[in-house]
Amino acid sequence: MHKRKIRMGMIGGGLEGFIGATHRKAAFLDGHIDLVCGAFSSNAQTCIETGASLYLEEKRCYASYSAMIKEEALLPCDIRMDFVSIVTPNHLHYPMAKLALEYGFHVMCDKPLCFEIKEAEELERLCKKNNLIFGLTHAYTSYPMVKQIRKMIEDKKLGKIRKVIVEYPQGWLSTSLEDTNHKQAAWRMNPSLAGISCCMADIGTHCLNLLEYTTQLEVQYVCADLSTYGKNRSLDDDGNVLLRLNEEVKGILHASQISVGEENNLNIRIYGDLASISWSQMTPNTLAFKQQDKIAQIYSAGASYLEDRAKYNTRLPSGHPEGLLEAFANLYQNFAFCIQDKINNKSSSKEKLDFPGIKEGIRGMLFIEACVHNSKSGQKWTKV
Amino acid sequence: MHKRKIRMGMIGGGLEGFIGATHRKAAFLDGHIDLVCGAFSSNAQTCIETGASLYLEEKRCYASYSAMIKEEALLPCDIRMDFVSIVTPNHLHYPMAKLALEYGFHVMCDKPLCFEIKEAEELERLCKKNNLIFGLTHAYTSYPMVKQIRKMIEDKKLGKIRKVIVEYPQGWLSTSLEDTNHKQAAWRMNPSLAGISCCMADIGTHCLNLLEYTTQLEVQYVCADLSTYGKNRSLDDDGNVLLRLNEEVKGILHASQISVGEENNLNIRIYGDLASISWSQMTPNTLAFKQQDKIAQIYSAGASYLEDRAKYNTRLPSGHPEGLLEAFANLYQNFAFCIQDKINNKSSSKEKLDFPGIKEGIRGMLFIEACVHNSKSGQKWTKV
Amino acid sequence: MHKRKIRMGMIGGGLEGFIGATHRKAAFLDGHIDLVCGAFSSNAQTCIETGASLYLEEKRCYASYSAMIKEEALLPCDIRMDFVSIVTPNHLHYPMAKLALEYGFHVMCDKPLCFEIKEAEELERLCKKNNLIFGLTHAYTSYPMVKQIRKMIEDKKLGKIRKVIVEYPQGWLSTSLEDTNHKQAAWRMNPSLAGISCCMADIGTHCLNLLEYTTQLEVQYVCADLSTYGKNRSLDDDGNVLLRLNEEVKGILHASQISVGEENNLNIRIYGDLASISWSQMTPNTLAFKQQDKIAQIYSAGASYLEDRAKYNTRLPSGHPEGLLEAFANLYQNFAFCIQDKINNKSSSKEKLDFPGIKEGIRGMLFIEACVHNSKSGQKWTKV
Amino acid sequence: MHKRKIRMGMIGGGLEGFIGATHRKAAFLDGHIDLVCGAFSSNAQTCIETGASLYLEEKRCYASYSAMIKEEALLPCDIRMDFVSIVTPNHLHYPMAKLALEYGFHVMCDKPLCFEIKEAEELERLCKKNNLIFGLTHAYTSYPMVKQIRKMIEDKKLGKIRKVIVEYPQGWLSTSLEDTNHKQAAWRMNPSLAGISCCMADIGTHCLNLLEYTTQLEVQYVCADLSTYGKNRSLDDDGNVLLRLNEEVKGILHASQISVGEENNLNIRIYGDLASISWSQMTPNTLAFKQQDKIAQIYSAGASYLEDRAKYNTRLPSGHPEGLLEAFANLYQNFAFCIQDKINNKSSSKEKLDFPGIKEGIRGMLFIEACVHNSKSGQKWTKV
Repeated sequence: MHKRKIRMGMIGGGLEGFIGATHRKAAFLDGHIDLVCGAFSSNAQTCIETGASLYLEEKRCYASYSAMIKEEALLPCDIRMDFVSIVTPNHLHYPMAKLALEYGFHVMCDKPLCFEIKEAEELERLCKKNNLIFGLTHAYTSYPMVKQIRKMIEDKKLGKIRKVIVEYPQGWLSTSLEDTNHKQAAWRMNPSLAGISCCMADIGTHCLNLLEYTTQLEVQYVCADLSTYGKNRSLDDDGNVLLRLNEEVKGILHASQISVGEENNLNIRIYGDLASISWSQMTPNTLAFKQQDKIAQIYSAGASYLEDRAKYNTRLPSGHPEGLLEAFANLYQNFAFCIQDKINNKSSSKEKLDFPGIKEGIRGMLFIEACVHNSKSGQKWTKV
Repeated sequence: MHKRKIRMGMIGGGLEGFIGATHRKAAFLDGHIDLVCGAFSSNAQTCIETGASLYLEEKRCYASYSAMIKEEALLPCDIRMDFVSIVTPNHLHYPMAKLALEYGFHVMCDKPLCFEIKEAEELERLCKKNNLIFGLTHAYTSYPMVKQIRKMIEDKKLGKIRKVIVEYPQGWLSTSLEDTNHKQAAWRMNPSLAGISCCMADIGTHCLNLLEYTTQLEVQYVCADLSTYGKNRSLDDDGNVLLRLNEEVKGILHASQISVGEENNLNIRIYGDLASISWSQMTPNTLAFKQQDKIAQIYSAGASYLEDRAKYNTRLPSGHPEGLLEAFANLYQNFAFCIQDKINNKSSSKEKLDFPGIKEGIRGMLFIEACVHNSKSGQKWTKV
Repeated sequence: MHKRKIRMGMIGGGLEGFIGATHRKAAFLDGHIDLVCGAFSSNAQTCIETGASLYLEEKRCYASYSAMIKEEALLPCDIRMDFVSIVTPNHLHYPMAKLALEYGFHVMCDKPLCFEIKEAEELERLCKKNNLIFGLTHAYTSYPMVKQIRKMIEDKKLGKIRKVIVEYPQGWLSTSLEDTNHKQAAWRMNPSLAGISCCMADIGTHCLNLLEYTTQLEVQYVCADLSTYGKNRSLDDDGNVLLRLNEEVKGILHASQISVGEENNLNIRIYGDLASISWSQMTPNTLAFKQQDKIAQIYSAGASYLEDRAKYNTRLPSGHPEGLLEAFANLYQNFAFCIQDKINNKSSSKEKLDFPGIKEGIRGMLFIEACVHNSKSGQKWTKV
Repeated sequence: MHKRKIRMGMIGGGLEGFIGATHRKAAFLDGHIDLVCGAFSSNAQTCIETGASLYLEEKRCYASYSAMIKEEALLPCDIRMDFVSIVTPNHLHYPMAKLALEYGFHVMCDKPLCFEIKEAEELERLCKKNNLIFGLTHAYTSYPMVKQIRKMIEDKKLGKIRKVIVEYPQGWLSTSLEDTNHKQAAWRMNPSLAGISCCMADIGTHCLNLLEYTTQLEVQYVCADLSTYGKNRSLDDDGNVLLRLNEEVKGILHASQISVGEENNLNIRIYGDLASISWSQMTPNTLAFKQQDKIAQIYSAGASYLEDRAKYNTRLPSGHPEGLLEAFANLYQNFAFCIQDKINNKSSSKEKLDFPGIKEGIRGMLFIEACVHNSKSGQKWTKV
């Protein structure tokens, strides 16, 4: 078997943004992915400058995503990109992903996936038809300790799950940044670019993904109280949600962008009848495992006693902290490995295939819809 | 002015229990209260043994609470007890408190206050009529850092409050302890002794008290999802509640007795438009104060920069940890000081009067009722 | 067997100080000790006011310690004090303790014990001669988790001890408080009141006691670098010490009163060949137990899995924090129980006798001397 | 100005090791460095396999470092490597670095630098002569919060420094791993490969670098107690050191490889007369800043209030943790930027030049020597 580096083209991610650089560093970290082209900005100058700063040839800095997809498709197969990474505002995910898939490129797409379920289904159809891989960047579930939790729950270390609490408070939108030329804030608060929700779509879906990934349960009903604290906003900037999952599990999910002083405090607590687990994104290299009336246990990333799936997604021995870029890089690396396997007509292992895709994207979309709907209604529970 | 030690009689609190000893140590700690008599148990032998272990004369170890109240009332005023401390299961709070008040004794009563609002109102009437003081042992709000939070919010350090999250997970009832001869568990899960709720009544009310004490807001509506995970239980052992408070504040309150591995993890987070505060009972000597994009601040109990109300309820310089007994002792000490003031026909300062009473008891009762009612109904919001 | 409350007389501890109140609260907490008299201050008015605030009769507020000891000795045995608690500056410990012992009173004395080894030996002789109990208030070793550590090490849970690190940084003397009318600072920096050392005597000895109590090893050699950072000081306000213990154990001890921003950060880490333990006074209710390449374990005070000696010195279930006053109260309670046993001609259990006394006082004095001597010399190691 | 990616050749870092991959990921992360060749192992097969896994052409996987250096020097300047990264055992650093410099290649070298001061001076001479850049991978000082500390101290935020404590406990050599085919352990404990010290050379030097980098002070005298706990070892696996720095600063440095249960707990505390700072490598994204009797402050990496030098070395907004690879990548990125500047005949900014080099390497070597010498002698203080 011959392996080669995988070639990435990026859509969005111009210099002035933050998310493009994050994706690129995550893609570069392990050395399996090269950036070969980009349509970084609708502003041609920005696009070329971004490309130059990334050591790209000007001819592969495209003026539009469609130009990039169509022209790359014409290049020899040992030169053209293998996949596109879509890091644009939400409303563009669908047309971009669709075109890329139609032209035979694998897709890594930022979340939330798209606006309509039928769009998601179309993407799914195209993937199957063209034998393509689709990744969705719910990067938080690529932390090794999150994978560890999933395995421990799968192995019934917690017994029967009873209750789950997942939180994602941030404070960055506590003032109306969107009125101050803050690009990120502006599009997120614009329904035509962001969709029907800001907070629930942007970070509530991370909560959902973290919850469903670790427990392998599904949220079936929500009772939501979404809020818009900022002035002149038409979308939610905060939401409190009661959950009913399958197997009679209950829970709470809350996400906020107006929780002043909170940085990026995604965390989860899962209680079974035998034990509980808690994990927090801001201290991602440990997790607490507790049984009633027993000595509490702290697992440490990088340790020899961890599950293989956690180890496989860790680079450093315990005590050498890894962070979000490494989690993000796990997602990209596993995605790249799956493309390498495709190239070699090899089926990919469960360990490599362990990243979110269209299925998780649809879950997020259903969740957003159910929350927005329930919050407006007088109804107590709304089916997801 | 002449001050004398205040004399306590205790109802309940026999040797085998845990809560009686806690109250006594809290009452003793600062040296202003003497235990002079008790009706510690309906079992006469237990009562006498308990009294003996507490160095009481046998003649002041009474066979029943009514005997104690009636006989003490006949003793000379320089000997008889000043107040009763009621540390029994919930169903007895009302008759005991009522009799004590009727006979002219101040009352310190465990929470929740009683079962019916009209009972609470009767106690209130008796207090006023007989010029008596009533304390309710929501001890957690007597921690100095909780008082600090109240003052900081009062002073608008957080700006306008937007969102509040208060949690109280415990794990001790994750298995059916009530079937194993565990006295505490048994009465708490027995509706005729505990009332209409276990978890919400026992610890949900602590959440409410903490929330309303610190913010000086009122919970107006609840949307509750109470659960009974343990087998053969008729009362809740867990509850998740969405909150609507006055001044358009929203929140989440959840309490649990089945959250395996949790010890006594009461905590609160309050978000205003200027700043947020978080505090946790298990690390009670610090609180975090955060403003957006500013350096986070950690306040430390005992420090010179704290508000007077916090200092007044602290004994040790910063770095020397205080715990729950000291918080509990603040409640007893302030209560005793108010009795001393009564004796001296002096009005008590706001600092001394800073302990929960019947008003807080009624709030707790209304909250329990609203949660139980809402949880059973299909209704989204129920008024408290 | 008949048990009665134990009667305490206090020497020192006038109202304006902090340490007297700490001792009193610790003595009161568990309800086995009554304060019956005091010589609280050399200022007669302060003495009487202090006594009044403590509800003492004026006739038992003595003008001097010798008056108190001599007059109490003449009182009937069911009235007179059982023991004196000495909470004065260091230079008075010896004459006060000596007189008390000569008159047949048990003694609880603040540390360090005295200035000269022969003084300590005289106290020891008097204790034996008059069958009296002597307690020394190294209160930090009365925390339940410290007792837990001792037992775990005794049981070889750490294997063979290799290395020990004990620290006690404070910051309160980082400026020259002693020049600002600060009484505590003034006497501690005065060699005729404090002895040959400030920092090492005041808190270095706590480190030593913590180290020797938990490991049951002895510091045999020190290599010390004491410092005096504050202007116009003649005593040390900081010290760094390398240690050699028996059984080829090595270690580091450092204490400081000029470590700005540190509150009272006493902590210890003990490394064996099988496992290590760490504990910190400012979060006293947990300890960490770690084995190489194993999941870290966090023990929690109040838990059912702890050793009896830890449980015996704990009041509350896990999750309800206890603090320094409770540790201090363990010392007083065990001391009082031993006096009760004496009264009943009963020998005391190992659990009750578990508090520091003259032996620990001598260890501290030897340590102070060795550090001061070594620091001044060019010698690398000085025998303790 | 035209910028191009910088080309790296690696010496050492074969597949089975851990440190080679760490360097590579750090070099790749930001996308400014390509790996173009390697002499990964003295085993030819390992070398080729390593190269293949890194997508290198076989012709640029060299059988020896000298072959690589000599043959690369003959390649056209738009193809040949720009610098070598040396990640071998210590004894090879000098000959490899020397040859690379002689042939005109910049050098990034693992620490400690070499064995003899005159070797270091020869490297320095070559750098100057050939206008080359030398980086030494004391990566811990490339954490953004460490740079923040340096700037705060430079700006006198701590006032006059008084005392410094720097620790680096690990536990991985608590058993004799070197006897179990553990390659890393084996060479580190072999004096002919590692030099005169194991623990002090491997991690003690990291302590020194952290201390001297942040404070800009120099350790002038050491009083060391090095230990060898493991059986059959000839080098130290632990060391406790008292420090005397210039400007009358004192300190403690201890490092250990036998502190069971410790992972990689490098940390530093710096006390000035105005304030103190503490930072720990295992939670690298925060630092604590404390003034006496003031509210403690917690700085968070990625925040807007940080110093430029910290921001310049951070990729993500606060709340998104970065780890050791990002710190390591800062070192490589700044190194690469300086090479780009050289190529463009541009002088590099202070921000870019902020990585350790030969000077820091010499400091480390002097420190190792002084510690080993002092520990064997009866002398109290040895000049560094």
